[in-house]
Amino acid sequence: MRVLITNDDGIASAGLHALVAAFESVGETFVVAPERERSATGHAITLHKPLRAHVVTVPGSSAHAWATNGTPADCVALGMLELLPARPDVVLSGINVGPNLARDLTYSGTVSGAMEGAIFGVPSIAISVGSFRNPTFTIAAAFAVELVRAILLHGLPEDTLLNVNVPNLLPERIAGVAITRQSAKRFISRLEKRVDPRGRTYYWLTGDPSPVEDLEGTDTWALSRGYISVTPITLDMTDDRAATAMRSWNLTWRPARDE
Amino acid sequence: MRVLITNDDGIASAGLHALVAAFESVGETFVVAPERERSATGHAITLHKPLRAHVVTVPGSSAHAWATNGTPADCVALGMLELLPARPDVVLSGINVGPNLARDLTYSGTVSGAMEGAIFGVPSIAISVGSFRNPTFTIAAAFAVELVRAILLHGLPEDTLLNVNVPNLLPERIAGVAITRQSAKRFISRLEKRVDPRGRTYYWLTGDPSPVEDLEGTDTWALSRGYISVTPITLDMTDDRAATAMRSWNLTWRPARDE
Repeated sequence: MRVLITNDDGIASAGLHALVAAFESVGETFVVAPERERSATGHAITLHKPLRAHVVTVPGSSAHAWATNGTPADCVALGMLELLPARPDVVLSGINVGPNLARDLTYSGTVSGAMEGAIFGVPSIAISVGSFRNPTFTIAAAFAVELVRAILLHGLPEDTLLNVNVPNLLPERIAGVAITRQSAKRFISRLEKRVDPRGRTYYWLTGDPSPVEDLEGTDTWALSRGYISVTPITLDMTDDRAATAMRSWNLTWRPARDE
Repeated sequence: MRVLITNDDGIASAGLHALVAAFESVGETFVVAPERERSATGHAITLHKPLRAHVVTVPGSSAHAWATNGTPADCVALGMLELLPARPDVVLSGINVGPNLARDLTYSGTVSGAMEGAIFGVPSIAISVGSFRNPTFTIAAAFAVELVRAILLHGLPEDTLLNVNVPNLLPERIAGVAITRQSAKRFISRLEKRVDPRGRTYYWLTGDPSPVEDLEGTDTWALSRGYISVTPITLDMTDDRAATAMRSWNLTWRPARDE
């Protein structure tokens, strides 16, 4: 098995190292990761400046590894198009420190790494632990290995990636595995307005979870109840129901004579 | 009607100015746009540094306008949470120079501006013209006005935004309006490897459209045939079919005794 691993916390992240350690005994492991933290980058890709990659060592590992000046999506593209000797069987992004859930997915650098893998047609998984404080990666890393085995056995549809969130709990407190939906909860909801020493205003974007109920079967519901949440995500964002409705609007474009 | 306009080409873009001009006669127009180009930023949001907004003038316009050091998503959040006196009826992002189609949508700063509007629960539209060379904005701006009228009349489902691409053609060459699906075509597919004057390797990400057929009814199909393409996009990226299939995998997590 050939594995390409990236993340958005950067090459120095302990979550990345834990994932590499878990996969080194399973297959040939390649790491292409940002040289610095690239959180909340969304699915940014670098078209306006040159990308560079330099060989690095992942502590405690003999994996082939590169650090780049790019985003997680750039790292996957560099790995696929240049750095790896052959196509990987799976792309992994993580292990992220902190959850990636609900409407936050589109902001997530971790998810965007897996999204880029899926765009290249490779089964891809984003993996996060549910806590920013004292995260432990053992369970997430071991579950990632199990999940990859299941994917290689059963197959994933093209255009599908998996978004995994693992509760930051002791093994005996894990409730199980739930295949979930993306919740409609939103987190960025508030600005803090401050004044700098020169008297100029600046803002911090922040937020609290929006008061949307954690519906049963959603990612936020599962994680808060101690389940490992696995959400299949599709690259095809077409809203079919809205498309059907809009066809009856009979939108037309007829140029006015004076245009 | 109260309109919030952003883009990813930056406050100085002629495409933005054309959109502002078209809406000034229709309603109260507010502009919050990046002070510099922020293309291919994906749905990045700025959490790690302060945001700033300063009042600017949009040439030929009396719209309330701010330039920010943020991404398109930041601009919409700043507008919604701080700068606008009240909630807008619609969020517009564009007019982008160059198309936003198929698998490129998730990279697009233009689309991410509209995505942020939809996350805030406001009907939102991303608008692009289909050519990087000699773009004309008249038709796109006029169609945006018509489309906003239709949205306010018929309503859009929550969690839905619209992605509009207008062919860069003379009015009489426009074939009509097509409600489309996102094509599976991919554009970032190639690296150019170069060597800098110091002998170090660097890369440019680039690409050609992947050899996927432009299926009838897709965004790439419609634009290449002279139609204005309108694709409804959902914020809910859950892959329901994959979720159903995966439930039969019976994934479990049982901690080993030695963990």
